[in-house]
Amino acid sequence: MSKSFGVALLGAGRMGMEHARTLLGIAEARVLAVADPNLQAAEAARLLLRAEKIYPNPEEAIHHPGVEAVVIVTPTDTHARYIELAALTGKAIFCEKPVAKELGETRRVLEVVEQKGVPFQIGFQRRYDPPYAQAKSKIEAGEIGPVEQFIAVMRDPAPAPLEYLRTSGGLFVDMAIHDIDCARFLVGEVEEVQAWGTVRVDPRIGEIGDVDTTNLSLRFANGALGVIQNSRRAVYGYDVRTEVFGARGKLVMDATPKTPLWQYGSGINADHYHFFMDRFKEAYRLELEAFFRSLSQGVAPTPGPQDALESLRIAVAATKSLREGRVVRLSEVV
Amino acid sequence: MSKSFGVALLGAGRMGMEHARTLLGIAEARVLAVADPNLQAAEAARLLLRAEKIYPNPEEAIHHPGVEAVVIVTPTDTHARYIELAALTGKAIFCEKPVAKELGETRRVLEVVEQKGVPFQIGFQRRYDPPYAQAKSKIEAGEIGPVEQFIAVMRDPAPAPLEYLRTSGGLFVDMAIHDIDCARFLVGEVEEVQAWGTVRVDPRIGEIGDVDTTNLSLRFANGALGVIQNSRRAVYGYDVRTEVFGARGKLVMDATPKTPLWQYGSGINADHYHFFMDRFKEAYRLELEAFFRSLSQGVAPTPGPQDALESLRIAVAATKSLREGRVVRLSEVV
Amino acid sequence: MSKSFGVALLGAGRMGMEHARTLLGIAEARVLAVADPNLQAAEAARLLLRAEKIYPNPEEAIHHPGVEAVVIVTPTDTHARYIELAALTGKAIFCEKPVAKELGETRRVLEVVEQKGVPFQIGFQRRYDPPYAQAKSKIEAGEIGPVEQFIAVMRDPAPAPLEYLRTSGGLFVDMAIHDIDCARFLVGEVEEVQAWGTVRVDPRIGEIGDVDTTNLSLRFANGALGVIQNSRRAVYGYDVRTEVFGARGKLVMDATPKTPLWQYGSGINADHYHFFMDRFKEAYRLELEAFFRSLSQGVAPTPGPQDALESLRIAVAATKSLREGRVVRLSEVV
Amino acid sequence: MSKSFGVALLGAGRMGMEHARTLLGIAEARVLAVADPNLQAAEAARLLLRAEKIYPNPEEAIHHPGVEAVVIVTPTDTHARYIELAALTGKAIFCEKPVAKELGETRRVLEVVEQKGVPFQIGFQRRYDPPYAQAKSKIEAGEIGPVEQFIAVMRDPAPAPLEYLRTSGGLFVDMAIHDIDCARFLVGEVEEVQAWGTVRVDPRIGEIGDVDTTNLSLRFANGALGVIQNSRRAVYGYDVRTEVFGARGKLVMDATPKTPLWQYGSGINADHYHFFMDRFKEAYRLELEAFFRSLSQGVAPTPGPQDALESLRIAVAATKSLREGRVVRLSEVV
Repeated sequence: MSKSFGVALLGAGRMGMEHARTLLGIAEARVLAVADPNLQAAEAARLLLRAEKIYPNPEEAIHHPGVEAVVIVTPTDTHARYIELAALTGKAIFCEKPVAKELGETRRVLEVVEQKGVPFQIGFQRRYDPPYAQAKSKIEAGEIGPVEQFIAVMRDPAPAPLEYLRTSGGLFVDMAIHDIDCARFLVGEVEEVQAWGTVRVDPRIGEIGDVDTTNLSLRFANGALGVIQNSRRAVYGYDVRTEVFGARGKLVMDATPKTPLWQYGSGINADHYHFFMDRFKEAYRLELEAFFRSLSQGVAPTPGPQDALESLRIAVAATKSLREGRVVRLSEVV
Repeated sequence: MSKSFGVALLGAGRMGMEHARTLLGIAEARVLAVADPNLQAAEAARLLLRAEKIYPNPEEAIHHPGVEAVVIVTPTDTHARYIELAALTGKAIFCEKPVAKELGETRRVLEVVEQKGVPFQIGFQRRYDPPYAQAKSKIEAGEIGPVEQFIAVMRDPAPAPLEYLRTSGGLFVDMAIHDIDCARFLVGEVEEVQAWGTVRVDPRIGEIGDVDTTNLSLRFANGALGVIQNSRRAVYGYDVRTEVFGARGKLVMDATPKTPLWQYGSGINADHYHFFMDRFKEAYRLELEAFFRSLSQGVAPTPGPQDALESLRIAVAATKSLREGRVVRLSEVV
Repeated sequence: MSKSFGVALLGAGRMGMEHARTLLGIAEARVLAVADPNLQAAEAARLLLRAEKIYPNPEEAIHHPGVEAVVIVTPTDTHARYIELAALTGKAIFCEKPVAKELGETRRVLEVVEQKGVPFQIGFQRRYDPPYAQAKSKIEAGEIGPVEQFIAVMRDPAPAPLEYLRTSGGLFVDMAIHDIDCARFLVGEVEEVQAWGTVRVDPRIGEIGDVDTTNLSLRFANGALGVIQNSRRAVYGYDVRTEVFGARGKLVMDATPKTPLWQYGSGINADHYHFFMDRFKEAYRLELEAFFRSLSQGVAPTPGPQDALESLRIAVAATKSLREGRVVRLSEVV
Repeated sequence: MSKSFGVALLGAGRMGMEHARTLLGIAEARVLAVADPNLQAAEAARLLLRAEKIYPNPEEAIHHPGVEAVVIVTPTDTHARYIELAALTGKAIFCEKPVAKELGETRRVLEVVEQKGVPFQIGFQRRYDPPYAQAKSKIEAGEIGPVEQFIAVMRDPAPAPLEYLRTSGGLFVDMAIHDIDCARFLVGEVEEVQAWGTVRVDPRIGEIGDVDTTNLSLRFANGALGVIQNSRRAVYGYDVRTEVFGARGKLVMDATPKTPLWQYGSGINADHYHFFMDRFKEAYRLELEAFFRSLSQGVAPTPGPQDALESLRIAVAATKSLREGRVVRLSEVV
């Protein structure tokens, strides 16, 4: 069994606890410190993980003796700060998306990461979801030939709280970015985008200057065309479907129903995923396992800084397209 | 059993023979005359249908004694002429789409139809396909609430011959129009469109000024957003999938696999539809049955002249958007 | 187009009308006479089919001038009589299953058929259902290797009326016989059977000496093992599933859902077949088309007399096993 | 976070390591000792689990200081001995099925367990598989009404080594017992069985007096009928399907395909589960989590001693039925 790495878990909220449970089962990870301003939450995670110490302040946890890697699950607008500090102190970094909502800040922080040469993985978990990972392999093996069309649908069960949305960076930066990363992962770089958006779900989302229902057209550098369709609300649960069409075939990733149990009564019925943590539970585990396996093997984890940056550039371009009512070329977004 | 109508079948090609087999089983229809310049084909249809006479020229067949209805399955650019003649002589008309490729001609001919007050049905068969027809009922019953998003995918197994494509009016007018009609049927009127297209399948399609791979964004009058994605080639067969998303649920129409037979060997395998006549065989039967049932009941058949015209307007707007690289409002297309 | 055969349709009840609609669309068939003691029903079928004459008595219709083939859809206990008369007068015969409920009568009548050399097809429509027909081809092509296990499930939506059940010959002869024929069709001859049955659905079914819920084990001559499970009632509709397992793979025939429309709301929902005429609509059409195609081509139609007889022998053996509480070898049933 | 229990893991083979990985992620379990005659395997597990000590002999590990619970994953014929020792020394016991292959030994050991009052759980993992667990809840909630029919199919990808099979107790005791437990879990107690078996897969299996292809009929105390069909080989992988039919509906548990990825090329293709550890990976985790949760909560774990005993009685009855060629009542098996 290989070396285990000392870990600081930054954030013990809902997603932090999910990562904590995964970390418990990863032999290469020993969580030493847990940080959360909510000390009760931090202590719960510490007990689960048999960690040494809790801190209200993530910065202190980064400095905890023996910490070699940080898992950042703090609120979005603090990511950049802890990434930077972790990089400067030479820690390996796993961080939930995004690095930051602004391109400038994102680029600045990722430059620190690259200068310091620390391993960095961004939490685009979908790349580790088995159907997506298999699709990637099949595409790379040429099983569907050159990709020509891409369709991604993602709908959340319900909008996040307005307070969160107000500072989320907008639907494309906050939500569509998962589909955008998926598009880059499965198809390639994007050259231009055209976004349409509207408010169908909650008028207050419009009042804060955002949209909740969108169509995002993508033109890829390799000539393929794509579309991403998002909504902030789906009464039946969390809806994620991706289709990649190529000259020699098509791949469809669609995880319904949730449980392989069919009930015959009034017609045929099955259940549906209700929540992203539910749908991507396995992916969340696999991405963290992959991160520590990369550390053990001394290879760069993936998706890395460039993936974090490029997906944000596309999301920013989409936001610009929406606001300006025109096609935006990625070269315009610097 | 109700009265049967004397019918002239205009066109005895592949689709004409399909309609002939359907007509054979419709008690309300007695085919009296068959027209086709290919007299062998006409005679085969006549024998099948025990019709009275064949004609090389459809115009003569329209005038055959006792003919009260015409089923027009002739080449596209002859539709308008036979619709007009049939209308002027007071026949009920079933015509394969389109009336004509140009808006002006379409409008002119449909005005004759309306002035003469003859029953007219355009061959958008998908409205009669059971999943689409059921979806329509469910939407009208409010089962998914107000519609917010629409996605339609249609891919042909292989491009039509170049000779055909050269005069087809372009992908949107020739092919996407089925999805466009479907959008109007299931969601409502369209206010603006934005089309992207590219040539991935065959460079000769580009040389004749057309595209073979497209993304068409739709903004509906009721505020919903939609996308239609088409390709002229899918190696696995004929691909048709439609998804309508609303505030209270989602409907997905997707007819795969073709045969409810699963083979377990190297994984799990099933077959796929290979051709539109295969996929929509039942719909082609149901639409003709509905046409004659409308005649028997003295009600207007559907989809009618307005549906033929409006779907073409949207296709023309899409073509304009593609050429001019901008969003086109339907109000621009007159 | 080939010669058409003069037909007498015997029986214009629910199934008779279904066959009438199919006959209307078969160019090789011209229905001349329709027989049914219910003259209104007979006249409705005559009008649909533009037949020449109706008769209250099927025997007269068989003698109608020009009749070359009979389609027998009369009550079960009259089949034998009309088969015999039709055979004696040299007509081709399509008859709904069964020939008769008793082996002796069945054998006697089929001997007349064979002596007279008239074409004879028994209405085991499932052989023409596309998944079953394809499965047969795949098995014959060796795609799943030697068959080792067989499972068939069939459940009716609700028990037939008690009056009918009383003279039906019992569940195995009346209902399981379709699965039995399917077993012979897909696997081969049966050597021994062991039946269990119970009354779960309606105690009156027990009172008339029958069962409504059964397990029938089959041992095939080629060494394979099988099971047929039937029930007289399924609240969700008509349930038919067949699985054939071989040394190199498995085939599953299962036609759910009925309509390729998925509704997402409270979970995922689809509809189910409600009735055998609904589930096997296409098979009923295909079997009659095949019968007339056989006549046209001068080949023996299938399934034929031997299939009618052997399936009944197995059903009789199953009934004997149930009554005597022991394994019954087919060689005991003569 | 609740108390954690000191654990001895007995067995570090393939399944032992699977349980080890699960134990790593269970906060209520601290593995202190690992036992395996293969010391390298034991050491690998120890390192993963950061356990204190390894032993070649499970008996020593049971006595390791601080051990409060044992997880028994040793070869089948040693289970009884370690269960007995663990019970006598007051440890909680999780044991892979079976307790022993003989009823007498099983009963004797379980009596020790009951006398000592130690918690005991038998490894019928399928009860914790989400579709099976949900089906149980739905049945108990009356969603399908009284159960009337049961069908279970299980096929292994390939026979276990002949050496293993020789002492396995036969197909019913070794393999069908999972479906038998499932039948008891979902339907209830069994009153009589009738087994048929044959050798289709490997003649050497016949030479050692066993069968590889079986049909097992079950008559339940509540009047329902069931069938279990097993095979020692399925070329496409591990095949598990269960159907429970009741007066008000039907539940089907069928986990295909493995990955929610559909490939369209030559037809539609998906992958299949290849192995039981693959198919029931989640169930293996959930059953161990449930065991430790029971310990924490001070409630009896389930399935317990009675479930271990009763399933074996049915398997023994099936074996007797196969050998004697007759229906065997459970009351005959004491």
